[in-house]
Amino acid sequence: MHVTIENAEAAIRAAIEKAREIDTFMCIAIVDSGADLKAFHRMDDAWVGSIDIAIKKAKTAVFFGMPTGEIGKLSQPGGPLYGIEHSNGGLITFPGGLPIVDSEGVMVGAIGVSGSSVENDHAVATAGAKALGAWELPAHPWRT
Amino acid sequence: MHVTIENAEAAIRAAIEKAREIDTFMCIAIVDSGADLKAFHRMDDAWVGSIDIAIKKAKTAVFFGMPTGEIGKLSQPGGPLYGIEHSNGGLITFPGGLPIVDSEGVMVGAIGVSGSSVENDHAVATAGAKALGAWELPAHPWRT
Amino acid sequence: MHVTIENAEAAIRAAIEKAREIDTFMCIAIVDSGADLKAFHRMDDAWVGSIDIAIKKAKTAVFFGMPTGEIGKLSQPGGPLYGIEHSNGGLITFPGGLPIVDSEGVMVGAIGVSGSSVENDHAVATAGAKALGAWELPAHPWRT
Amino acid sequence: MHVTIENAEAAIRAAIEKAREIDTFMCIAIVDSGADLKAFHRMDDAWVGSIDIAIKKAKTAVFFGMPTGEIGKLSQPGGPLYGIEHSNGGLITFPGGLPIVDSEGVMVGAIGVSGSSVENDHAVATAGAKALGAWELPAHPWRT
Repeated sequence: MHVTIENAEAAIRAAIEKAREIDTFMCIAIVDSGADLKAFHRMDDAWVGSIDIAIKKAKTAVFFGMPTGEIGKLSQPGGPLYGIEHSNGGLITFPGGLPIVDSEGVMVGAIGVSGSSVENDHAVATAGAKALGAWELPAHPWRT
Repeated sequence: MHVTIENAEAAIRAAIEKAREIDTFMCIAIVDSGADLKAFHRMDDAWVGSIDIAIKKAKTAVFFGMPTGEIGKLSQPGGPLYGIEHSNGGLITFPGGLPIVDSEGVMVGAIGVSGSSVENDHAVATAGAKALGAWELPAHPWRT
Repeated sequence: MHVTIENAEAAIRAAIEKAREIDTFMCIAIVDSGADLKAFHRMDDAWVGSIDIAIKKAKTAVFFGMPTGEIGKLSQPGGPLYGIEHSNGGLITFPGGLPIVDSEGVMVGAIGVSGSSVENDHAVATAGAKALGAWELPAHPWRT
Repeated sequence: MHVTIENAEAAIRAAIEKAREIDTFMCIAIVDSGADLKAFHRMDDAWVGSIDIAIKKAKTAVFFGMPTGEIGKLSQPGGPLYGIEHSNGGLITFPGGLPIVDSEGVMVGAIGVSGSSVENDHAVATAGAKALGAWELPAHPWRT
């Protein structure tokens, strides 16, 4: 199952609205359940370096079906996933990437946001994911 | 000078309209004058392999300030630019990428389209670029 | 807005002068506001390994509109941006990269210096950036 | 033996002079005999895509101790070096890259030029290499 472009754009619009509300300039990426880019939006004045980070956050969230920040907790020195960032062409494992889960518990894609503090990135990603109804994560495994 | 996100979205909307008119399913990418991604849109049912091609077409068009197909004419076996595709992380040199030039003759970015025949890709890219007023190419050098 | 080659060379000359004053051998890179290389200078006897570091520092400084060392403070184990170095083809997040900001507060590019201690790299980068009049950083967002 | 930075800059100055004389906007790269970047200069209005091509031309010329165009003759479909461009992180095998050979017949580096037709690129590279006294190539093997 894949996020539709209509859904992807709705998520981006909701994310932009939140970004403006908190006075930030974000890059916002949506990938489908295959981790392939569906839509991307760079707000004017967003950091150029955030393009790749937003996309990698979205991919990372789909790769493992969890918020990027959860992976980051496990990838610290001494942790069980230390160095996982070297896989899959480069992961980003701090907050700002969230799976997009439909109302039946199916992961249809993910959103990745970069451009401000990780708290702001996460807040904007949450606004985007929630626009599609649900991002609370059912138990693994994901049906994709 | 960089394309604004408002302009980028206008170009994408015009491209989508043309894509629908000719019954195709396209990936459409907009980059700024530094070849950095500004916006991306993958229509439902577009080829997954077209994601990277659309982005590389847009980058290629900005890299050399000309339609991608013009470079492809020069990069054939025996041609003066044979093998140029190995540069810049990979170029796409068949039609579907066009510089976006503003009304003052400044190249502000480029559009790349992939998902159908190269004729269709080029037609959709043209529709997108023209939405911003001008894509006829002034003589080199570009002011960027 | 992009740094001109005349400005880039002025920044490099000022950086070289500082490098000689403190008896170091530096690689010095200047990128424009799209993070694309504008000029590069490797002093005789500078480390070969510093070529890539100087370029990556300059790119990193433009990517996020801040001194590279500021990003490094946030990317330590346990920090909010841990692992950000995996993005954008590889970042360098210790000191030695600085945005170049013109007198109107516009970020026109960045300088990256590598070849000695990070304190020396930072001192030489500062001398280079200041040659263009201003590198004190206005509040985000950057206009680019 | 390596080209000095003083020599590299002399070659770049001579190349720029030629580029202006023929009304072109070039990227000019100098590498040492280890194929490591020594100096780089992007003239204002030069194509962004020429940055990587100029550097790859210089590296390619050193990698095999011959003008890039000579390699391109051998790398055509059916030729003995078909596909060699896939090596060494990507080669550019059309004209515009030349070894820099000192007066004792030692290859001390190379110059790579990109930004116009291959004829112009080659003419500007020749002007740069000749500024160092000799680029006529003695017989292989090169002493490096």
